[in-house]
Amino acid sequence: MNQEKRTVEPKLLKGFRDYLPAQVSARQNMLNTIKQVYERYGFVPLETPALEYLATLVGYGEESTKQIFKLQNPEREDIALRFDLTVPLARVVAQYPELPTPFRRYQVGPVWRADKPDPGRFREFYQFDLDTVGCASMVADAEVICGMYDTMRALGIERFQVKFSDRKILNALLEYANIPAESGYQVFRVLDKIEKIGIEAVEEELTVGRIDTSGDKIAGLGLEKTQVRKIKEFIALPKGSHKDVLNDLRKLFQGTASGDEAIGELSEICTYLNALQIPDDIVFIDLNIARGLEYYTGPVFEASLLDVPAFGSVFGGGRYDGLVERFLGKKIPATGASIGVDRLFAAMQKLRLVKMLPSTAQVIVTVMDKSKIVEYQKITRELRLADINTELYLGEEQSLAKQLKYANEQMIPIAAIIGENEFSKDEVTIKDLRLGAQIQDKKKTGIRKDRDEWLRESRKAQMTIPREKLVERIHELLSHNA
Amino acid sequence: MNQEKRTVEPKLLKGFRDYLPAQVSARQNMLNTIKQVYERYGFVPLETPALEYLATLVGYGEESTKQIFKLQNPEREDIALRFDLTVPLARVVAQYPELPTPFRRYQVGPVWRADKPDPGRFREFYQFDLDTVGCASMVADAEVICGMYDTMRALGIERFQVKFSDRKILNALLEYANIPAESGYQVFRVLDKIEKIGIEAVEEELTVGRIDTSGDKIAGLGLEKTQVRKIKEFIALPKGSHKDVLNDLRKLFQGTASGDEAIGELSEICTYLNALQIPDDIVFIDLNIARGLEYYTGPVFEASLLDVPAFGSVFGGGRYDGLVERFLGKKIPATGASIGVDRLFAAMQKLRLVKMLPSTAQVIVTVMDKSKIVEYQKITRELRLADINTELYLGEEQSLAKQLKYANEQMIPIAAIIGENEFSKDEVTIKDLRLGAQIQDKKKTGIRKDRDEWLRESRKAQMTIPREKLVERIHELLSHNA
Repeated sequence: MNQEKRTVEPKLLKGFRDYLPAQVSARQNMLNTIKQVYERYGFVPLETPALEYLATLVGYGEESTKQIFKLQNPEREDIALRFDLTVPLARVVAQYPELPTPFRRYQVGPVWRADKPDPGRFREFYQFDLDTVGCASMVADAEVICGMYDTMRALGIERFQVKFSDRKILNALLEYANIPAESGYQVFRVLDKIEKIGIEAVEEELTVGRIDTSGDKIAGLGLEKTQVRKIKEFIALPKGSHKDVLNDLRKLFQGTASGDEAIGELSEICTYLNALQIPDDIVFIDLNIARGLEYYTGPVFEASLLDVPAFGSVFGGGRYDGLVERFLGKKIPATGASIGVDRLFAAMQKLRLVKMLPSTAQVIVTVMDKSKIVEYQKITRELRLADINTELYLGEEQSLAKQLKYANEQMIPIAAIIGENEFSKDEVTIKDLRLGAQIQDKKKTGIRKDRDEWLRESRKAQMTIPREKLVERIHELLSHNA
Repeated sequence: MNQEKRTVEPKLLKGFRDYLPAQVSARQNMLNTIKQVYERYGFVPLETPALEYLATLVGYGEESTKQIFKLQNPEREDIALRFDLTVPLARVVAQYPELPTPFRRYQVGPVWRADKPDPGRFREFYQFDLDTVGCASMVADAEVICGMYDTMRALGIERFQVKFSDRKILNALLEYANIPAESGYQVFRVLDKIEKIGIEAVEEELTVGRIDTSGDKIAGLGLEKTQVRKIKEFIALPKGSHKDVLNDLRKLFQGTASGDEAIGELSEICTYLNALQIPDDIVFIDLNIARGLEYYTGPVFEASLLDVPAFGSVFGGGRYDGLVERFLGKKIPATGASIGVDRLFAAMQKLRLVKMLPSTAQVIVTVMDKSKIVEYQKITRELRLADINTELYLGEEQSLAKQLKYANEQMIPIAAIIGENEFSKDEVTIKDLRLGAQIQDKKKTGIRKDRDEWLRESRKAQMTIPREKLVERIHELLSHNA
């Protein structure tokens, strides 16, 4: 062995994390639920490599380019870790003309961004993306929104909102307020701050600038009074039913090219969501959402959880008709959304919607006499062949009490115990550790029961049965939660 | 949009590949089957990051170090993509003292090696690892071997072998032949070539060297005649039952320290496999397996498929009691195995054990009249809410024939068709495309049937029913394969 003798410190990279067993299982269950929803819609799975040519990944704005983990392959070509799953999809669509049109795919996997790591902000995180490429109709956008609604429901999230708008609304606003398209991005960035800094500060930033709370000077965009007045008209549009919002938009923007398009798209989506019987108090137009990424060209959507607002948007997307063009030279319409898997998982943990089980085993076979290990192996094998997840205790503890303590910590529901007595009579003692835990809980909480009831429950929690009844009895115990 | 206007060529990196939908689904099914086997054993899932400190990953031999994809994080630290899942496991065990002992985990995921890409050799590939850390008993090794056997069976592979041996056998051979331990690795490398170059060429390489077929001089190791004679005694050991092999080993090596240990370990494993009723014509000792990686210290195992020998070993592992020590400073016993997922998947494709379905949809709702899209959406929604995977046709084709052709290509089993006629009577026509395909197949193969039978089958393949019977009828159709 040419391993070095000094030890290497076992540590994670900054911004990275391990998922330990209870978390992996719970997150996998969450991902399987989401997959099921999208397979219900006929979306198909795709997998692309973690690494791409750097040239494939740059060109989506300075910020994303700055965050790319870059390296070289043995041929000294510039390559990089993917920072999202959308750009690889665009590459795939351009590369394989044999794919069906439209191509409706989902993809789950890690992406990497060399971002400043913060609590809750990681350099490696999972995304779950779904996209429809090759369909210009708003029917596709309505399916994405409907799928977001179904996903939240399937995950057991009771209070959530799905908001949607249209990027073209913002273009209409520029047209209406007579602001050149080039300044659009800056204006939107200021408007995005409304909830954080308030309308007055926004007005200052749009015009002469302001001094922020830390004393820094923020330059103004130099807009004129009439321009700001028009922006404020837009901001002041009252919320309301789809019909009201669309009417208000018509009053303001009808006649501008972008306005007509945006209103057309939004009202189509409303019609479809209505047909799909999606309740409009949960899924509705919110003109304030813009979504960060520059490549959106039409409808945009996002979902957030009402009981944990701090987690922000957990699911968002929109239409991006220009992305595939970069690779193919011709425009291909596309729309989709992405779930921030780790953020959603953290939010669901907070909401106690996640069941964390450290073990996969349903039964533990305790080992009372190591010289009879072969007998314990046979019992273990028998249970496994009967489709019961079974762990044979392989640790160092000799005492039954300590082995059962281990099983309790691992939350394994049932223990099979075979000691001298059981061996001599060809019997097995099985102990329902869930029931045992309940009795203990009740002891702790001080709830007294009469003596008979105690004995009855203890007896139920543990029973000695003939060995040939083992599988049958355990199947019974597992079929109802103790 | 500040995207560049010229197009970027859509291409994959050398040694990387995309998994398109039919492959992803099939591979996912394979992985789920393997997971199920190991959860049956009580193994628990773990996930670690793709990136680790470079220092964590070096020190396992020159070859693996050379193959590491290296990069830097924004803090300018040397980091790298993991090249296997075993080293990260050792890091995790050292880092989290709260993990249960033994820690029995499985992990599935990609690993990266900057290897020379060949057909069938990739720079990114999936591994499925399972390991038991913290158990010195051969019971743990027997569980790994038993699990390999169960995995092959669960995957429907009929003809396979699981071979095992012990690295200490090779040490015993060195002792027996009086060869210093330092030369061991070179000797084993030569012995590994027996099947490829034959015993005579091996003998030459062990002694004076030889000229290979391309005329190159291969230096000899300079062993003496008596040493070579002893090695040849070992090579010539006849195969046979576990009992015979163990007896032969005893005759040769009993009394050497390594020999006694190896024979003890192997005979323990044989006892356990026997108790587990694992047939010894499928799972048996083969003294010729050595496994490449330097870190193995005890039993080693590998599985191969008899009907596709070219794929070599698809599943292999062994005991590595020294690995965690690098991080923790103290020895922790460990044993495990790794499945070459992509190689196994390719082998299963070759064996036709893999069902490739391009679509996840069970029903396609065709669109005959785009102005009635809302009605098609309602029907689609109804089917999805009844847990039927349903695709609403969103492509450009107008004709029913072309939409059905699309459905056939995607292997979607059932089409729901609603035209003018159906709308007027509130009916739906459903067509079993599987049956249609069968009838067509029979036409092609020229098997003639009498006219009545034809009509009966065609009628079964297509039927018009009241709209309210739709869900019920489709559930029926899906419950039996046409």
